Amino acid sequence: MAVNLPAPVAADLHPVPGVRIGVTEAGIRKAQRKDLTVVLIEPGASVSAVFTRNRFCAAPVQVCREHLASGSAVRALVINTGNANAGTGADGLQRARSTCEAVASRLGLRAQEVWPFSTGVIMEPLPVERIVAGLDAAIAAAREDRWFDAALGIMTTDTVPKAFSARAQIGGKTVTITGISKGAGMIRPNMATMLGFIATDACVDPSVMQQLCRELADGSFNCVTVDGDTSTNDSLVLIATNRAGHVPVQALDSADGKALRAALLGVARQLAHAIVRDGEGATKFITIQVEGGRTVDECRLVASAIAHSPLVKTAFFASDPNLGRILAAVGYAGIEDLDQALIELHLDDVHVATRGGRHPAYQESDGQRVMKQSEITVRVGLGRGTQAATVWTCDLSHDYVSINADYRS
Amino acid sequence: MAVNLPAPVAADLHPVPGVRIGVTEAGIRKAQRKDLTVVLIEPGASVSAVFTRNRFCAAPVQVCREHLASGSAVRALVINTGNANAGTGADGLQRARSTCEAVASRLGLRAQEVWPFSTGVIMEPLPVERIVAGLDAAIAAAREDRWFDAALGIMTTDTVPKAFSARAQIGGKTVTITGISKGAGMIRPNMATMLGFIATDACVDPSVMQQLCRELADGSFNCVTVDGDTSTNDSLVLIATNRAGHVPVQALDSADGKALRAALLGVARQLAHAIVRDGEGATKFITIQVEGGRTVDECRLVASAIAHSPLVKTAFFASDPNLGRILAAVGYAGIEDLDQALIELHLDDVHVATRGGRHPAYQESDGQRVMKQSEITVRVGLGRGTQAATVWTCDLSHDYVSINADYRS
Repeated sequence: MAVNLPAPVAADLHPVPGVRIGVTEAGIRKAQRKDLTVVLIEPGASVSAVFTRNRFCAAPVQVCREHLASGSAVRALVINTGNANAGTGADGLQRARSTCEAVASRLGLRAQEVWPFSTGVIMEPLPVERIVAGLDAAIAAAREDRWFDAALGIMTTDTVPKAFSARAQIGGKTVTITGISKGAGMIRPNMATMLGFIATDACVDPSVMQQLCRELADGSFNCVTVDGDTSTNDSLVLIATNRAGHVPVQALDSADGKALRAALLGVARQLAHAIVRDGEGATKFITIQVEGGRTVDECRLVASAIAHSPLVKTAFFASDPNLGRILAAVGYAGIEDLDQALIELHLDDVHVATRGGRHPAYQESDGQRVMKQSEITVRVGLGRGTQAATVWTCDLSHDYVSINADYRS
Repeated sequence: MAVNLPAPVAADLHPVPGVRIGVTEAGIRKAQRKDLTVVLIEPGASVSAVFTRNRFCAAPVQVCREHLASGSAVRALVINTGNANAGTGADGLQRARSTCEAVASRLGLRAQEVWPFSTGVIMEPLPVERIVAGLDAAIAAAREDRWFDAALGIMTTDTVPKAFSARAQIGGKTVTITGISKGAGMIRPNMATMLGFIATDACVDPSVMQQLCRELADGSFNCVTVDGDTSTNDSLVLIATNRAGHVPVQALDSADGKALRAALLGVARQLAHAIVRDGEGATKFITIQVEGGRTVDECRLVASAIAHSPLVKTAFFASDPNLGRILAAVGYAGIEDLDQALIELHLDDVHVATRGGRHPAYQESDGQRVMKQSEITVRVGLGRGTQAATVWTCDLSHDYVSINADYRS
């Protein structure tokens, strides 16, 4: 059902030297399902992360933040699906810490060197005992070429595993980038429910890792939305194993820094787009470009209003060029001094509205033609500046309601 | 399909002396459907209004604002359904003005004394010629006891006409209040797509009319949401015909002012609740009370986040006590320094979460019992102050998608 999103081929996912992955069936919520993943990181890697801005963040996010703040090395990630360990109070925090301790004791690490991640149902106690019981098998299975299994092992309502690889030339060496992500509901900027893990063997100075991770999130996962719900558990982790043998990237605006950032952003965007393409019930992939704004922020405000409007999203689902709904969303996005007489609207190549009203040459049949496509670009001109922003989203279908009405059944 | 919303009985709607209503079938969008309403207001009335905050407001809203600003008396309202005259640019403005002129010429008024209202599809040219052709019949039919017809004549996707009456004792006289409204999609605070018209024969000094109308909107229509889309056309009009023969209300904090405000607010809330009960696809009526906030605004922010969450709304539709979704919405509502360890959650009488986690005594069967009801109260305690706010909403069902995917078909 995902929109133009083929499943990855395991052989196309390049191993990243310094990262091994083990996946097992721990029976966390359902039997016979890969639901527990460990990522083992060799010493010497640089790791950074950004997390949900939801104030009701999950226990594992709180623990990750603590471990990040401790300045410890990061040597293992432990990821479960089936239970988000969110809305679980002090008990949930204890369970997340127990999970880290169990991993650490098996690997001879300190608990702070282990980061926990959970996704799934909120407000249910995390079955730590099942996770601990599965750890030995997951660790024993760890290999460098298990990215496809990891993509499977972190899915919730995703219908397609999400994994992409790329290569780039950095400092005269060929570096590898491989990442996985999962959606697929509770998705909106800042950030999606969404777990994203991207690894590279490139050499990156620890001092620029956090900025690099933030820029990747801002250019990819923070630009997608499915339903406007910001999850409690969103996390994006960037691992640089420093194995490629080139001089470490010390500045993101150097030639190597730019090249690495671009290559990483390419993978991050593929992962983020995949979340939208596999958005719950999605039948269409919509790109919303807002230009002519005074600031990037106001362009994002407008793009997000369009992307979140249930009326716009159901019109896309119906292939109905009821495009006034887009204009209405532009109007309520929150730009107080917006002049509606300057608004332009294109749907792909079709000029729908000019100066705030229907374009004289616009024919409904033209709008209908574009609306029937599975990939559509909405372009809005605000006529008040030179800034722009892009958001990617999907439509709102019957299946979205079915999936979310039945999710726990 | 509306939730506990019986159709009004025409005989229960009290005429308001000084207001006559005529409704006709003008064939604006569909044949054999009441779609054109005129409200004729005798001289000496006080009229005020509040309008959508959508910056892309419809042509009739712009014309109403001009006529309101002109300080002219208001002697007639002309309301059509089937076409919103929004997203129609300069041509749409001209068509709204032509409509006013046509009404004015038939009644011996100036155009500024006529206020136009439109609801229906956006970005289609308003068929002024059909409206004008229907005016004579509508005006000729005008009588004081036609409120029920008016409620029918302003419907779009509403399934039930919305009209309520009340009486109150003001200044030793019995005054009458009668109002009508329409929804039922594109509904959110500030304001719903939503037309609301409330008339009373009470005597109100013009100097307090605008404040009175604003307070009515803030206490009713601005507290309801169906899908979070703020319409281009929202309008609430308050008419006081000054016929009741008591000393005019000069201050809203006087005894008479408070009594009148309370009686008007009672009708306004019934009209606003009716919009939610008849929300597109609604199967449940949800009251969201947020308390323990530092400010009313932050309580409304949280209540609105819960009310707008597609995940929360689909859980209500499914009667699924997946209540962590409510906690997630609390977390992303936008209170930066929220302490999740202080959050309490009740579902009717069931204590679901305490100190940010599942309540030890909470049983899923208790949550399930409440979720199956057609009327549910969600109560969230923020634990950081003494302020509170309430928002009313409905669930998100398959029928919402169907209605909005098929609206123009």
